[in-house]
Amino acid sequence: MSDITAALIVIGNEILSGRTQDTNTSWIANKMTERGIRFVEARVVPDDEAVIIKTLREMKNNVTYLFTTGGIGPTHDDITAECVAKAFHVPLDLDPQAREILLNYYGGEEHLTEPRLKMAMIPRGAALINNPVSGAPGFQIENVYIMAGVPRIMQAMLDDILVNLQSGPPILSNTVTCLLGESQIAEDLGLIQKRYPQIEIGSYPHYRSGVLGLSLVLRSTENDPLDKATWEVVELIRKYGGEPRAISVNSSGQGLKTAS
Amino acid sequence: MSDITAALIVIGNEILSGRTQDTNTSWIANKMTERGIRFVEARVVPDDEAVIIKTLREMKNNVTYLFTTGGIGPTHDDITAECVAKAFHVPLDLDPQAREILLNYYGGEEHLTEPRLKMAMIPRGAALINNPVSGAPGFQIENVYIMAGVPRIMQAMLDDILVNLQSGPPILSNTVTCLLGESQIAEDLGLIQKRYPQIEIGSYPHYRSGVLGLSLVLRSTENDPLDKATWEVVELIRKYGGEPRAISVNSSGQGLKTAS
Repeated sequence: MSDITAALIVIGNEILSGRTQDTNTSWIANKMTERGIRFVEARVVPDDEAVIIKTLREMKNNVTYLFTTGGIGPTHDDITAECVAKAFHVPLDLDPQAREILLNYYGGEEHLTEPRLKMAMIPRGAALINNPVSGAPGFQIENVYIMAGVPRIMQAMLDDILVNLQSGPPILSNTVTCLLGESQIAEDLGLIQKRYPQIEIGSYPHYRSGVLGLSLVLRSTENDPLDKATWEVVELIRKYGGEPRAISVNSSGQGLKTAS
Repeated sequence: MSDITAALIVIGNEILSGRTQDTNTSWIANKMTERGIRFVEARVVPDDEAVIIKTLREMKNNVTYLFTTGGIGPTHDDITAECVAKAFHVPLDLDPQAREILLNYYGGEEHLTEPRLKMAMIPRGAALINNPVSGAPGFQIENVYIMAGVPRIMQAMLDDILVNLQSGPPILSNTVTCLLGESQIAEDLGLIQKRYPQIEIGSYPHYRSGVLGLSLVLRSTENDPLDKATWEVVELIRKYGGEPRAISVNSSGQGLKTAS
């Protein structure tokens, strides 16, 4: 699929302790998919300087865009900016533009306390990312984009970032569901996958209201083979006595939408 | 905290495409925390053999227990068992015990089709993990535990695993919330953190119904300093005019529970 790739580092003890359910990964995953950017990895790491630096260095060279969420606030456990500076071997400077943003946000010099100024300490050479929600900016250095962890703020920052990213051919995806067991159709489904190497076919069993169902998801940037392969999946389900329902069809469809 | 550590590899394109919200990470995180096992990393990787093998090899030596979820079904995109065998340089065998389990589950030799038998192909030397939900077992090899991706099945498998894991001293945690801004209390909170190096203090702003709130989370295996530090946080919030509410207190508390 797309040669443009992205990955994410979720920085936060609160995710690893189980206290907070991460939703940033799936939000970012969806935005990347919409843009035709292949989202290839997400890692959750603790608020640990050595681990964050190592992870940044390891991951930034493997992808077109690397995102991070979390750890850019004013408290002692917010260490992301410092770690990024160290990972890139640059100093952490008081950024005049970030200072100005905080000055306006908090409404006066007298409110620029040390913890607030900490949020204007930016690795040298980084460009700021706008935060319309709570002032303190994110920043970009090379191909790495540093965002807040609070979902509402992260989402606003990502909107600011997205306008500047390269995008790939849109990743089209069709989902067909049925109540058959995975193993009933596995063999024939594998044959369809073999005939359509340019399509990524995933098979996902799930329990909903106690009923075991199956979602078959076909993804590709190429519309015509995607439609053809999807129809073969529809026929396959019928062959085994299932009732195919086509949902979330975003290829041209050729009648697929009415299969439900 | 605990020297017993765990990490997780979430295997699945459906998470990276944004189609599915992963909930296995937070489930496992909570179970580890309950057991006093430090959960130190989670990675989401695609259904890609080379990536899965590399990730398994990289991570298994860094932790006491490594878990994986996903990719052990009967379809072409289920490649986890194969990858584990390759990562450990062992062959993938038809496991007689796993075959017996599937025979009983599907009710007869004539139902043991090739895709179903695929789920009895287990890396040599692995021990099976019971699956009371849908038959096909998970397995353990050395310190690596291979589980299904469907949450209901993963949870049942994890229960089977947990009885055999070493556990550490329970990680106690107290959460105090207020409506103050993070930067108001950041400096004093940092001082409390310095005085209690054995406590991990996290500060998490959040929006709920449009209101910016703050959760201060204190975690430790040592009850007394945890209580003391928590009371200092309560006092800190009062000092800045906030109204502390103590929630999810699982230390001895010493009156904390009534602070709400």
